[in-house]
Amino acid sequence: MTEVCGTSRIVGFRFSLYPMADNFVDIILSTLQQVDTSKVWVKTDDISTVIRGKMDHVFDVAKTIYLIAANTKKHVVLNGTFSIGCPGDSDGDVYMSEDDVRMNEDRVKNIHIEAPTQFALYPMNNENYMQIIADVVEIAKQQNTFTAGIHYASRLDGDAHDVFTTLERAFHYSQEKVKHVTMTVNISANSPSTKKK
Amino acid sequence: MTEVCGTSRIVGFRFSLYPMADNFVDIILSTLQQVDTSKVWVKTDDISTVIRGKMDHVFDVAKTIYLIAANTKKHVVLNGTFSIGCPGDSDGDVYMSEDDVRMNEDRVKNIHIEAPTQFALYPMNNENYMQIIADVVEIAKQQNTFTAGIHYASRLDGDAHDVFTTLERAFHYSQEKVKHVTMTVNISANSPSTKKK
Repeated sequence: MTEVCGTSRIVGFRFSLYPMADNFVDIILSTLQQVDTSKVWVKTDDISTVIRGKMDHVFDVAKTIYLIAANTKKHVVLNGTFSIGCPGDSDGDVYMSEDDVRMNEDRVKNIHIEAPTQFALYPMNNENYMQIIADVVEIAKQQNTFTAGIHYASRLDGDAHDVFTTLERAFHYSQEKVKHVTMTVNISANSPSTKKK
Repeated sequence: MTEVCGTSRIVGFRFSLYPMADNFVDIILSTLQQVDTSKVWVKTDDISTVIRGKMDHVFDVAKTIYLIAANTKKHVVLNGTFSIGCPGDSDGDVYMSEDDVRMNEDRVKNIHIEAPTQFALYPMNNENYMQIIADVVEIAKQQNTFTAGIHYASRLDGDAHDVFTTLERAFHYSQEKVKHVTMTVNISANSPSTKKK
């Protein structure tokens, strides 16, 4: 990780999509085919996929992947890490000149799914990082998506659009305060355990 | 996350086990039943499980869960975050008085599975954090498990026992240098994509 990070304010999201189903390959491939990724740099390997670009487009693509996969009604999870400001390389910097029009919002705006989420924020190299985390929890509380502080993470619940808005605002707020920030997200859908909580 | 963290050198691991199979519930439950968790504090919710205790036992339980699940030959992934030194609460501190004898090593030592892994290290509130990350990459190189630096992560490959030893050494090294450290891990098994890389 020392060798390949970004110099600009390019945002990255390294994620895995996990469908808990025998036909997981079909779900992953058909989901990715339905997402417009034309405004982000994309690289996939056998463990995860990384997308890089402007914050708008990275969050647009992330939410769309989640919603399309969740819309199969299978138990799926989107798990990954958003990152900005890690010192290093410049792959994908050309995508920073894209406009701000989100490519996927229209096609997913009517998909409504409960998105139980655990996330954690890591503002790097900053002595006030615990305060920034507290500020982000406040943002989530104001949005009515915050439901619990848990060990090593915070929990969000609600419609996926609201949850993703909270995540994006939290990340946007943090990266204005701190140069290098990462945020882990574990976003579930259609879990059979959900109703037992 | 501001509200519930630890004060001692207790290690935590919040993780999800993702079996890419229709019988994912059976795989998760039967895996957890086969692991001796008597020396760690455990709490499960509908998204993830957190274990807390001495570093030895947290890594012992993590590796065992991975190996037992992977031994089903299904495509499974263990994805989570190790953490130490987050200021806060003390749930599970009683487990810090356990002895150092690992409860599961004997039962899994003969299970050998390739464990393609991506991990990232976050030493908090430290201006030398990039150097610590570089040191950890050196540890992995010395163990011959390091295979690539990728965006936002490092890649390990090899037998699961070697990969987990690298992860534990990396975490142990880092927490000697920095009070609050987290480490994300995404450890795959039996992926149909593996041979395509």
